[in-house]
This record gives sequence, C-alpha cells and structure tokens, in this order.
Amino acid sequence: MTTSNSTVQFRMRIYREGAIAIGPGRVALLEAIEEAGSISAAARKLKMSYRRAWLLVNDTNNALKEPAVSSSEGGVAGGGSRLTPTGRALVEHYRNIEAAAARAAQADIDALTALIAKEPAESD
Amino acid sequence: MTTSNSTVQFRMRIYREGAIAIGPGRVALLEAIEEAGSISAAARKLKMSYRRAWLLVNDTNNALKEPAVSSSEGGVAGGGSRLTPTGRALVEHYRNIEAAAARAAQADIDALTALIAKEPAESD
Repeated sequence: MTTSNSTVQFRMRIYREGAIAIGPGRVALLEAIEEAGSISAAARKLKMSYRRAWLLVNDTNNALKEPAVSSSEGGVAGGGSRLTPTGRALVEHYRNIEAAAARAAQADIDALTALIAKEPAESD
Repeated sequence: MTTSNSTVQFRMRIYREGAIAIGPGRVALLEAIEEAGSISAAARKLKMSYRRAWLLVNDTNNALKEPAVSSSEGGVAGGGSRLTPTGRALVEHYRNIEAAAARAAQADIDALTALIAKEPAESD
C-alpha cells in the first residue's frame, strides 16, 4: 500500500530446516503458473529463467507434504502445469495472511508512516 | 515463531523514494543503541561494522521528519547515542505491527504451516 510517497511492504516467509519453504517469490510464481498454465510461460511473465522457475517449483514441492504444482506430459520439465489443491490452498492462505496482517496493523502502520519525512532530506 | 521444524518470519519494510526507510535491520539497530548507549557498542553487539551502523543511523535519521537517534559529544561519530522520542515511537510501532500481524493471521499461518512436510523430502 502507498501513503503519500511511502510504500509499506509486508513479507512473510516460512523456513523449514533453515531454508525458505514458502515466501513471496514462490507464491507469485505459483499464481503465475495457475494463470499461465505452464512453468515456462510463468517464468517468462516473471522475467525469470526457466531453470530458476523449475528449481523453485521443485524446491517448493519437496518442502510440502503434497506437491503444489502438477505437470502433465513429460513431468515438470515439459507440457502444462497447474496448481494442485495444496498449491491453491497455499496461495490462498498466504494472501489471507498478508491482508489480515495489514488490516490488523493499520493504526500502527499509519503512525509509523507519519514519522517519515515527506520530501527527500539532504544527506550530510 | 516456530511450529515443529518450521519457522515463520514476518518482515515489514517501509520504502521512501524507492529506498528502505524503516525495516527489520534498522529497528534492531535502534533497539541495540537504546540498550547499549552508543552506536559503536550497538554495532559490536550486532556484529556489524561501525561504519555500516553509522550509515544506517544516518540514513534512518534523514528519512524521518525528526531524527531517531541523538548523539552527544562530537556528533553521531563520537560519544554516546540514544533514541529520541521519535526513535522510541518508531521501535514501539514496528514491534506492535509485527505482533498484531502475527496474531491476526494466526489461523492462516497454522493452516499454511500444516502443508509443510515434517521431514526433509528427497530431492529429485
């Protein structure tokens, strides 16, 4: 959200064994896969290499009890891909968390934003 | 917070003119300055160079209407430092936001965490 020239960003990550299991980049990729219908089209949309997108999907699937993405024709590397029920639940809970967090913290966010200078201050 | 072997991390950042004005690293530094009584002692505590700590304080002060840190004897570079009322308000609102966000989102966080595998899955 944006207040005057300030932008507030909430980011939630869930780590598993010290590595990210769920975070904003992975959720955006899952949403793009659902929309675009394949990992390669999602990667193009997010200006990400296919290799990086594939590795993120693979890591995410491995971090979950059930995979988030299922792929047809030739496995994850080929053909179309879509979200599983687990993948859709993951995206939905993640977006709910962001919205609930922003709503619950609104008064303190406004108070914090009010401390920020409106115009660039001179650096000394 | 930790659930089984998963750790949930909330991070809020406020950007101003495209650069971070308030974020978790700066808030931790302000808290350390308040506790330690100087930028150099806070930097040591956070295993950060004095130069980096000083630059972060300077950037933060410049991003705010009123500085967050005031320094005695020789300016920011020397002597003791402490938080101003603005600095204390900043830290308090930031910690309130984290707590309110985590509370508000608890049910979805639990649902999301429940999707994560308990044991490391084999990579393929």
